[in-house]
Amino acid sequence: MATDFTEEGAADAVIESFAGTPDERLRTILDSLVRHLHAAVREVEPSIGEWERAIDFLTATGQKCTDVRQEFILLSDVLGISMLVETINERGAAGATQSTVLGPFHMTRSPERELGANIDLVGESQPCVVIGRVVGTTDGDPLPGATLDVWQANDHGAYDVQEPGKQPDGNGRGLFTADGQGRFWFRTIVPSYYPIPTDGPVGELLAATRRHPYRPAHIHFIVSADGYTPLTTHIFVAGTEYIDSDAVFAVKKSLITEFKEVDDPDLAAQYQVSNPFRLADIQIALSPGAQAELARGDNGPRTP
Amino acid sequence: MATDFTEEGAADAVIESFAGTPDERLRTILDSLVRHLHAAVREVEPSIGEWERAIDFLTATGQKCTDVRQEFILLSDVLGISMLVETINERGAAGATQSTVLGPFHMTRSPERELGANIDLVGESQPCVVIGRVVGTTDGDPLPGATLDVWQANDHGAYDVQEPGKQPDGNGRGLFTADGQGRFWFRTIVPSYYPIPTDGPVGELLAATRRHPYRPAHIHFIVSADGYTPLTTHIFVAGTEYIDSDAVFAVKKSLITEFKEVDDPDLAAQYQVSNPFRLADIQIALSPGAQAELARGDNGPRTP
Repeated sequence: MATDFTEEGAADAVIESFAGTPDERLRTILDSLVRHLHAAVREVEPSIGEWERAIDFLTATGQKCTDVRQEFILLSDVLGISMLVETINERGAAGATQSTVLGPFHMTRSPERELGANIDLVGESQPCVVIGRVVGTTDGDPLPGATLDVWQANDHGAYDVQEPGKQPDGNGRGLFTADGQGRFWFRTIVPSYYPIPTDGPVGELLAATRRHPYRPAHIHFIVSADGYTPLTTHIFVAGTEYIDSDAVFAVKKSLITEFKEVDDPDLAAQYQVSNPFRLADIQIALSPGAQAELARGDNGPRTP
Repeated sequence: MATDFTEEGAADAVIESFAGTPDERLRTILDSLVRHLHAAVREVEPSIGEWERAIDFLTATGQKCTDVRQEFILLSDVLGISMLVETINERGAAGATQSTVLGPFHMTRSPERELGANIDLVGESQPCVVIGRVVGTTDGDPLPGATLDVWQANDHGAYDVQEPGKQPDGNGRGLFTADGQGRFWFRTIVPSYYPIPTDGPVGELLAATRRHPYRPAHIHFIVSADGYTPLTTHIFVAGTEYIDSDAVFAVKKSLITEFKEVDDPDLAAQYQVSNPFRLADIQIALSPGAQAELARGDNGPRTP
């Protein structure tokens, strides 16, 4: 018996075609995607020309990708999909510091540094000290020996990998190990907000929809400790521009951190910075659990 | 006031970010897509690893595209999206012959041929005669001078452009003009079913889901007449394999056509074919309307 294509029966027919998929999880994913994509098409009723422009957009997005550029992740980011997936995957981590997107700039291995080291290798801007503690969510006990992979843009909003030759390698990056009380501290400068890459199809989408490409100022962290689920997150600089309109929707209120102006010559001397300086004091709580399914960021660049 | 990302609020936040889109149609499309994509993600709850595989799949799909290969259209095809869009766009054409997908093999200009010409330039297989009439839907009157752009695979399921050097250029193709009574007739061979390209991500998807890549045997038509909406369609060979499981969901029952076995020396002589031969007799009805927004197939290859 021949099939007969109809608008009403189309989604069912496609889902039925996937019925023999041996991997049940793959079949579940395809069923849901087909159901929702067909619903969107039936709702929007695209013209042939609109469908062709959609095909062209997706094709250009794929073709923009290189070893150092991932335009499909950028698209996922500006549609809020990346953050939605990230947030779904942190469910159940009650009491843990909230996660946010990895971004594309965790491309190089952060240099191991001693506690207190300065990750700002340029030294022309007001110093900033970041201090804090890593604790477990179960009892709030400190996690000695926790590692903190830190990376950030400079005060012009650029990462070292974006300005090779202009910024020293490893500028704004450090891999720290917390002390016996789970404490950490390092010197840096306050990062600036910055735009995600706009020279591709996603940039065209933002321009066509009058959306700005900026991300509020933030410092990235990946925090790990034996027996705890690694955490990928940011701290956002309180008062930064774009905190209410992050182009990739990555802001969670709990991650907004005061970078206080401190005028205290003794404290400045203790941290080996000039006075006055900025100070951020944070606590990072990890939930017990296995290591994540893979070390994040080890499979190519992610955006932004 | 800072935003706070939540699963529940995510779709609204993204849709709100598109609120300033000057093109109202674009905004409507994005709203619907965001709403349905977020719904699918919240339903499926992908792991980070699954999300990464989805990004990799889309990237590979874009990177498979070339001047002569359109893998995203192939993806749209095997998900039934292409046919859904096609079918939505033929609504209102009451009484008209149904449309179906263009496919990717309308890449070259079909050679103009006289009525009765043979589009099979090889001449080794049983001949087939296709005859018919082009009429308007309003009163059923014939449409003299209607043009019929015809293309088909050979009896091994290959189009001329797939076998340069093996098949003569223009094999299986012809551009015909109906006579004063809207009639047309030409000689050919019965085409075979064939697989869509399987050497890309879409082929991997079909393999992973145990779907076969075949399309049932068919002949393509684009039929045009002044004052009527051009029609892109197929006629499917009744009894062909895969008629109930076309890999691109393009079958509509009304398009299935008997290719009758005819044993009639006089009729064979009239059509200048050897006896016995196959005969398909079709009527194509066009609905009044403007020319379509563009001549289909003029903007690169489409699949399949």
